[in-house]
Amino acid sequence: MSDDDPGHMDPEAFLVAGRRALEWVAAYRAGVERHPVLSRAAPGELRDALPAEAPERGEAFETILEDLERLILPGITHWQSPGFFAYFPSNASEPSVLGELLSAGLGVQGMLWATSPACTELEAHVLDWLVGLLGLPAGFRSDGAGGGVIQDSASSAALCALVAARERATGGESNRRGCGGRLVAYASSQAHSSIEKAVRIAGLGSDNLRRIEVDERFAMRPEALRARLEADRAAGRVPCFVCATAGTTSSGAFDPIEPIAAVCRELGAWLHVDGAWAGAAAICPELRAPFAGLEGADSYCFNPHKWLLTNFDCTAFWVADRRALTAALSISPEYLRNRASDTGRVTDYRDWQVPLGRRFRALKLWLVLRHYGAERLRAMIRSHVALAAELAGWIGADPRFELAAPVSLGLVCFRHRGGDAVNQELMERLNAGGTAYLTHTRLENRLTLRFSIGQYRTRRGHVTAAWERVRAIAEDVAPA
Amino acid sequence: MSDDDPGHMDPEAFLVAGRRALEWVAAYRAGVERHPVLSRAAPGELRDALPAEAPERGEAFETILEDLERLILPGITHWQSPGFFAYFPSNASEPSVLGELLSAGLGVQGMLWATSPACTELEAHVLDWLVGLLGLPAGFRSDGAGGGVIQDSASSAALCALVAARERATGGESNRRGCGGRLVAYASSQAHSSIEKAVRIAGLGSDNLRRIEVDERFAMRPEALRARLEADRAAGRVPCFVCATAGTTSSGAFDPIEPIAAVCRELGAWLHVDGAWAGAAAICPELRAPFAGLEGADSYCFNPHKWLLTNFDCTAFWVADRRALTAALSISPEYLRNRASDTGRVTDYRDWQVPLGRRFRALKLWLVLRHYGAERLRAMIRSHVALAAELAGWIGADPRFELAAPVSLGLVCFRHRGGDAVNQELMERLNAGGTAYLTHTRLENRLTLRFSIGQYRTRRGHVTAAWERVRAIAEDVAPA
Repeated sequence: MSDDDPGHMDPEAFLVAGRRALEWVAAYRAGVERHPVLSRAAPGELRDALPAEAPERGEAFETILEDLERLILPGITHWQSPGFFAYFPSNASEPSVLGELLSAGLGVQGMLWATSPACTELEAHVLDWLVGLLGLPAGFRSDGAGGGVIQDSASSAALCALVAARERATGGESNRRGCGGRLVAYASSQAHSSIEKAVRIAGLGSDNLRRIEVDERFAMRPEALRARLEADRAAGRVPCFVCATAGTTSSGAFDPIEPIAAVCRELGAWLHVDGAWAGAAAICPELRAPFAGLEGADSYCFNPHKWLLTNFDCTAFWVADRRALTAALSISPEYLRNRASDTGRVTDYRDWQVPLGRRFRALKLWLVLRHYGAERLRAMIRSHVALAAELAGWIGADPRFELAAPVSLGLVCFRHRGGDAVNQELMERLNAGGTAYLTHTRLENRLTLRFSIGQYRTRRGHVTAAWERVRAIAEDVAPA
Repeated sequence: MSDDDPGHMDPEAFLVAGRRALEWVAAYRAGVERHPVLSRAAPGELRDALPAEAPERGEAFETILEDLERLILPGITHWQSPGFFAYFPSNASEPSVLGELLSAGLGVQGMLWATSPACTELEAHVLDWLVGLLGLPAGFRSDGAGGGVIQDSASSAALCALVAARERATGGESNRRGCGGRLVAYASSQAHSSIEKAVRIAGLGSDNLRRIEVDERFAMRPEALRARLEADRAAGRVPCFVCATAGTTSSGAFDPIEPIAAVCRELGAWLHVDGAWAGAAAICPELRAPFAGLEGADSYCFNPHKWLLTNFDCTAFWVADRRALTAALSISPEYLRNRASDTGRVTDYRDWQVPLGRRFRALKLWLVLRHYGAERLRAMIRSHVALAAELAGWIGADPRFELAAPVSLGLVCFRHRGGDAVNQELMERLNAGGTAYLTHTRLENRLTLRFSIGQYRTRRGHVTAAWERVRAIAEDVAPA
């Protein structure tokens, strides 16, 4: 290589290319409603259009951007479209996008405090901010025994919580000797699949995950939890982990945290609360009631990358006793030792997660909290909750439809009374139309449509248009 | 909230703020050598300077950028400085930074093929490109039984490989019934701590990780591996997983893959090869010899986010039998079902990893491969390897110093002959000086300095300056 032509972009070339990239993103977002929300690409379509081999010679940035527009864009499902009502929102607000840019520009590794002190300290600090903003128990703050960390996803947070729980229940034996088959975990029948995945990965075995029955609102029955825990204990098993969900994926149900925490406390199980989607709502004091009881939780997580305007990945995860977490996840080889860590006065976040390396993710969360300020974040949450209530009213007023579960924050579960086939066709035709995209679940073994309002650009007009479209398709699919 | 003032940036505001962010990054990088490579921040310094609570009202982007410069920057350790010789490189080239920006701008979730077909297809395609570029076995390509996926880190790749290995060895029982204590894993005494971490998390227990002895070059002894495997099997245990390292963290040693693969094949263990750092070197045909035998591996990973110019996170992970991986990691709740997945004709990458959600990381790798082209990537690797050889020559010519291990690609392990205390002080004074940063390990129980050449802006002058500084400090610390 000649030192004169390594191909690196100098600052001027970076600015030129960067401005083009920025303009592309700005134009994409300004015109996002021109695209069908759910991509219409066929399997293999993109791959067939790409060269079979990587280029030998470098190419111009402009050429790559053209391919992005021409080849990639048709294969995108537009999570940033205001017509996106599928799954849960995955909001990537503009300030968070710029936070990601700044973080990538700095290009630091935050595995140890020493490898970029600001990366660790801003993260600890912003997670303390969130404790205040969301009215979470002070025990999660880093100035006591607890603390928060950013994980990539609620799945990873659950896995870390489970490993910590496993270790606590076995007095530190599970890391050393393996899990054996006596450890038992508990979650409601409505809990997210990531809990079962964690139970498998952590070696407990899904046979040892008890799916606790739910009530008519799809929330865990604490008395059923107690009965299973006691029965397991009587049978010589070791109940070690309970996951309560604050806002289930299917229907947004809230497991009652307070009585579940009482059971866990009494029987000595680790309580993890998964508020992945709904957790953002706690920024509004009037929406905090269903989170009551979090004081009794050993760990809690929610995803700013869903409903709090911070682009994926950004899961906020807290523990009440950080030593229980780091005892389970810490290994210190010589090549990671350093004077700061040896003092014990700093936080090394590698011991709070599965991977070693980590990005500077706190930066984007910090930008979002500062750009918007708490009042605008609350206003956004309130606007979505109000729209969902309005939509539920329209559904209730149309005799062809019914609500399938109580409205939960921005999530409305409903169905056409005509049965699964009608609902399936309704969903597919709506999604094929391109202006809206929603997904389904099953509740009481019936296909149920989930209308999830939370995309940050969604306005009342998008909701009314989608609902009118649903009604029109229903007219056609199942004429009265 | 008034629909008129939700606080979102409109395209014009985004462009204005975005240009400022870009200019900040460009200026930061242009002036990166003005900062001490290793941050001099004291514990708590940043936190003490930040407000105790999140702001109630939104703030101007410019104000936040000023705080980034004034408060955050002093707490940054500069991984993008050409004087960064610590750990391994974590190169965040400009094209990859822009790839991250574009990915964040699109803001898609790639958990399922349907949730953005291009996100999945570009990833599968670019990982096939890499198979060709690196001369990897064709069996890792997605058009056969194998395939590649991007993980956040080699730690996570190892965990996924281990869970797949565990499932294969137990005929699918470990996910269902838990791990028990009979499963055994193997790695050399020099393997990365992430392997032991995976063994703990996956419930095998670190007592069931055999640390196989190494030869005088710190490479695993295949005959020792065979003996341990046979002994375990004779004792009724189930050897399920072997991790060979292609380029260890401490010294860059290469375990001999071919004979290790032969042992694994014969005794039925899953062979995972961890090429986290060194793997990028295989883009140069003349550097491929130590990777011989990968045909016998069940899985392999390396990190483009180390030495291949793609910003963290980007670990390329391949399996020879993708069904073994997805069988171990797949769970399909109703709310994730969709027509495309039901056809079985598409890849859903959520089944290839621990988390459910995922960013569009292939975009930045695609940008890097296209911007540079293979020839410039090779040239960069070669320049670093040549610099390391040159540095080793200088070390060998100075009687006060000795090489502590054979030079491996860009990694030079050396020590002052004066003993641990001298080397410790040498390192600390060099790092305190601010123009260079290197870290240590222990080899044969002696403190050893690691001079890792791989930062993409590093030129010969940076290496000579750091070496001259080491010599000058040595003069002072341990005068002849």
